[in-house]
Amino acid sequence: MTDQARAFVPGHVTGFFTSDDAPDPTEAGSRGGGLALSDGVTVTVRPAAETAVFLDGTAVGMSAVDRVLDALGVRGEVRGEADLPVGTGFGVSGAMALGTALAANAAFDCRLSTNELVTVAHGAEVQAGTGLGDVVAQARGGIPLRLEPGGPQVNVLDGIPARTRVEYVVRGELDTADILAGDTGALTAAGERALSAVVAEPTLSTFMEASRRFSREAGLLTPRARDIVEDVAGAGGTATMAMLGDTVVALGTGLSDAGYDPAVCRVHPGGATVLADEG
Amino acid sequence: MTDQARAFVPGHVTGFFTSDDAPDPTEAGSRGGGLALSDGVTVTVRPAAETAVFLDGTAVGMSAVDRVLDALGVRGEVRGEADLPVGTGFGVSGAMALGTALAANAAFDCRLSTNELVTVAHGAEVQAGTGLGDVVAQARGGIPLRLEPGGPQVNVLDGIPARTRVEYVVRGELDTADILAGDTGALTAAGERALSAVVAEPTLSTFMEASRRFSREAGLLTPRARDIVEDVAGAGGTATMAMLGDTVVALGTGLSDAGYDPAVCRVHPGGATVLADEG
Repeated sequence: MTDQARAFVPGHVTGFFTSDDAPDPTEAGSRGGGLALSDGVTVTVRPAAETAVFLDGTAVGMSAVDRVLDALGVRGEVRGEADLPVGTGFGVSGAMALGTALAANAAFDCRLSTNELVTVAHGAEVQAGTGLGDVVAQARGGIPLRLEPGGPQVNVLDGIPARTRVEYVVRGELDTADILAGDTGALTAAGERALSAVVAEPTLSTFMEASRRFSREAGLLTPRARDIVEDVAGAGGTATMAMLGDTVVALGTGLSDAGYDPAVCRVHPGGATVLADEG
Repeated sequence: MTDQARAFVPGHVTGFFTSDDAPDPTEAGSRGGGLALSDGVTVTVRPAAETAVFLDGTAVGMSAVDRVLDALGVRGEVRGEADLPVGTGFGVSGAMALGTALAANAAFDCRLSTNELVTVAHGAEVQAGTGLGDVVAQARGGIPLRLEPGGPQVNVLDGIPARTRVEYVVRGELDTADILAGDTGALTAAGERALSAVVAEPTLSTFMEASRRFSREAGLLTPRARDIVEDVAGAGGTATMAMLGDTVVALGTGLSDAGYDPAVCRVHPGGATVLADEG
């Protein structure tokens, strides 16, 4: 237990979602759909006398990460290197929680199973209020459909069997905790309609159409994101707003074709994983 | 639907397993544990007037592949390119069935979900008698633990959160259908003991130890495989026989250290996936 260990967690852009509360945080969460991205977060954990958490070299407070380490009964230095900005709809907080669980399990030889680690990270993220479904989606990878909420012991997952190039532009942050603390009834109803549409026809084009409709019906579409989504549509492409960030995601070359200068990545086919043994 | 599409399916070496029958082939299967491998099978499907199946350029009869195409209601040319030999315990037949399902869904725009395609391939493989658990393990990737049998609508999966280099040597074929058609009571009892041990401590070393014990208790360890496993142990490494092939798999550099000239691959962290859109 003097070794360090690393894990990679794909980013995750949510297209649509519900908010499903439950007394047990490992059973609470959300249903919905999203894209796991090859841009993600690499988390390194090494034992230390006091826990300290860094993101891209800067000390940060991340309640979900602290909760994961507490649940595993360990203290360590956690360093995340992110391809993606925090607070903009890419699941960076979920990635930090899940990456910490996977890397700490390896570094401290905790001997937990994958499902147990995902459950710990999911529960920590829900309790921290920073996300409802990113962790389980990031554990699966691909294009996850979350049919039932919660951690792996209770949830039901499926997926859209496709891959694609993804482009995105980030215009600003949104506070997930703030939005989830409000009345989520209308949001959940819109999320259920979107999920039904995609379950009936699990294709990328239906996913994007359902996501766009959700962002409008849930009242979450920002004016800046709406303008960009319309620009992409005008250029013949398909785009939607990332839930929850002032961020627009397009398939293929949608944003480039509309004259934007996007970041480019791909759907990441696999889920979060520890990296090669370094011990 | 004039496009071709491709899918990659990781190889899968089973360490231990049970045989769990059920009237519905999508609910039958096995519990057990194994390693998904970066060496696998790439399957290309294109529409054709008559179905034809090729493996590494040679026309083959593969009942599971025919059943998958029938279930999807399509006819096509299926071409598999395998990094691995067939009949030697790497799940090549399961990979052909699952790769055909994923690629045919894309080529023919069938609009099925990932779980639906895995269910079709798993049921086809069980009905063909060529495997019980490879397809669902190959759909998951990593180091899958199959806690409950069957397709994704009924099974329960977990995993060992680790990665490692894998070495293997192939000494000959075993007939899976032949063994599964016999009395599997003792085999299943041994498989249950192995699974219990690994669930209690989901680590690579426990997995290898449980697999070795299973191969002896189930009466499946061939003399040639036993000799090689003992050679690896004598050189300080850890190895086990692949279920079901006359094949030995070692972690790290176990076979090299014992003087063998093995093939080398890695645990494949992700599951089977369609490859980038070619349409």
